Amino acid sequence: MSHTPHSVDVALRWSDMDAYGHVNNVQYLRLLEDARIVAVADWLGEGDRLLKAGLIVSRHEIEYLAALTFRHAPVRVDIWPTRVTAASFDLAYEVRDPAEVGEQLYARAESTLVAYDLEAARPRRLSAHERARLQDLAGEPVAFRWRPR
Amino acid sequence: MSHTPHSVDVALRWSDMDAYGHVNNVQYLRLLEDARIVAVADWLGEGDRLLKAGLIVSRHEIEYLAALTFRHAPVRVDIWPTRVTAASFDLAYEVRDPAEVGEQLYARAESTLVAYDLEAARPRRLSAHERARLQDLAGEPVAFRWRPR
Amino acid sequence: MSHTPHSVDVALRWSDMDAYGHVNNVQYLRLLEDARIVAVADWLGEGDRLLKAGLIVSRHEIEYLAALTFRHAPVRVDIWPTRVTAASFDLAYEVRDPAEVGEQLYARAESTLVAYDLEAARPRRLSAHERARLQDLAGEPVAFRWRPR
Amino acid sequence: MSHTPHSVDVALRWSDMDAYGHVNNVQYLRLLEDARIVAVADWLGEGDRLLKAGLIVSRHEIEYLAALTFRHAPVRVDIWPTRVTAASFDLAYEVRDPAEVGEQLYARAESTLVAYDLEAARPRRLSAHERARLQDLAGEPVAFRWRPR
Repeated sequence: MSHTPHSVDVALRWSDMDAYGHVNNVQYLRLLEDARIVAVADWLGEGDRLLKAGLIVSRHEIEYLAALTFRHAPVRVDIWPTRVTAASFDLAYEVRDPAEVGEQLYARAESTLVAYDLEAARPRRLSAHERARLQDLAGEPVAFRWRPR
Repeated sequence: MSHTPHSVDVALRWSDMDAYGHVNNVQYLRLLEDARIVAVADWLGEGDRLLKAGLIVSRHEIEYLAALTFRHAPVRVDIWPTRVTAASFDLAYEVRDPAEVGEQLYARAESTLVAYDLEAARPRRLSAHERARLQDLAGEPVAFRWRPR
Repeated sequence: MSHTPHSVDVALRWSDMDAYGHVNNVQYLRLLEDARIVAVADWLGEGDRLLKAGLIVSRHEIEYLAALTFRHAPVRVDIWPTRVTAASFDLAYEVRDPAEVGEQLYARAESTLVAYDLEAARPRRLSAHERARLQDLAGEPVAFRWRPR
Repeated sequence: MSHTPHSVDVALRWSDMDAYGHVNNVQYLRLLEDARIVAVADWLGEGDRLLKAGLIVSRHEIEYLAALTFRHAPVRVDIWPTRVTAASFDLAYEVRDPAEVGEQLYARAESTLVAYDLEAARPRRLSAHERARLQDLAGEPVAFRWRPR
């Protein structure tokens, strides 16, 4: 199973740093949020509709590999779907320097997104189109250091 | 192995809600951050010193169980150490209604904290006092729905 | 014209601090937001309805008087209406230590709130009840250092 | 007195929106913060040093002109110094659509920045270089609707 991750550059904000002078661990999830919105919109075409009306985060997992300090260069978030089921899918992420900036990897993460019918207020099934598209893009799960797969 | 989790009430902010009108998934980690600062300070006595000078987050894992809307009542974060090693420990959390408000459980989470020597800028060992205290308080790992232990 | 300001205690979060190790200047506005939500709800009874369905911020002004560092004690926000017109009102704020903590004044601020009809998506008039209640509570404008009144 | 404002594009984040589905009024100050950091660094050359070691915000004033919704296009912040004194200066800002996106003006704002000697922990004078550079760039104060000049 091969894949080409979607790469989304996300601008840092000075306020992402906390009192230690590093990008705060919680803010990494904010960076993932914006990368995810861009990537899912690109993948599913109907992305705006889907994001506004039908995906909720049911799980996050993240490990931190290096400290990140505010700079004007963005971070690059590589993002790809992994496991796709009838009603949910996992996303893998790697937060790194853009190639023109460096080679540092800052974090790896994984989220589970659940398809949701906002009007009916209950989980829904992914459409055949959504599932096919995600499976087409799917790659290996992210390799966390701490957890054997 | 039994334990009494530390319970820390954390006030919500109206701004914790996102455009969906629910407390945003990332903001849950902010609530955990404040609960953790209180709990670790209480446990280790020397907490302020430790938090400012010597613990870094190396991993988070969180699963969301119910939507939370801003209200004036705080959420209660039950928090306890689980695995304690020579240089790190895990914390388990449950985010729930305070008993006087209700019985809803909103999220379960787990963080790994690594002892760090900020001056030398490298991992350090937990002191004998820190380790003994944490082991004394340690309980079972949080039971995530999605992952067998 | 005398008044008794409404006092609302707002809990700080560790993340309110920025890389300088002080509560960030922008975060003061967050503290005012939560104090305002509590105060307006208390004043207007129908506060939840009003806040959700009918007030928008059209202006803020704030001056900073002293640096604030995260601590477990909340800050106290004294808040009172000043100028009340047919369709808007001003709020004055002072951010200070609770009496049991100290006597430091950290900031003074003023906001203009405009009554808004969210369904019609246009400004509305304050109701006679809203106006009478606010005028009853109204006090002197906040005395900014930099601007003569 | 003429001037060419410095234009800084600042990316929005989805989380800048609040429960009303618009960019929250407080978040506008975050956008100004990032524009200010870029502009001052560009103007004063030694900007990084200055920002990290020597300017504090003593006042903000902002008025909101139109609602802003998250989109992938950034906002453009036009920013220029106005009043320059021995130890402080004012900045004017206008938050608008980039020319290629539209013509909407969203907010006008003004901040006072005070030169600060972080080591001595007290206000300092602007250097001759800083003052000359800022005066060279200075333009008219921002024209707030609500306050005659």
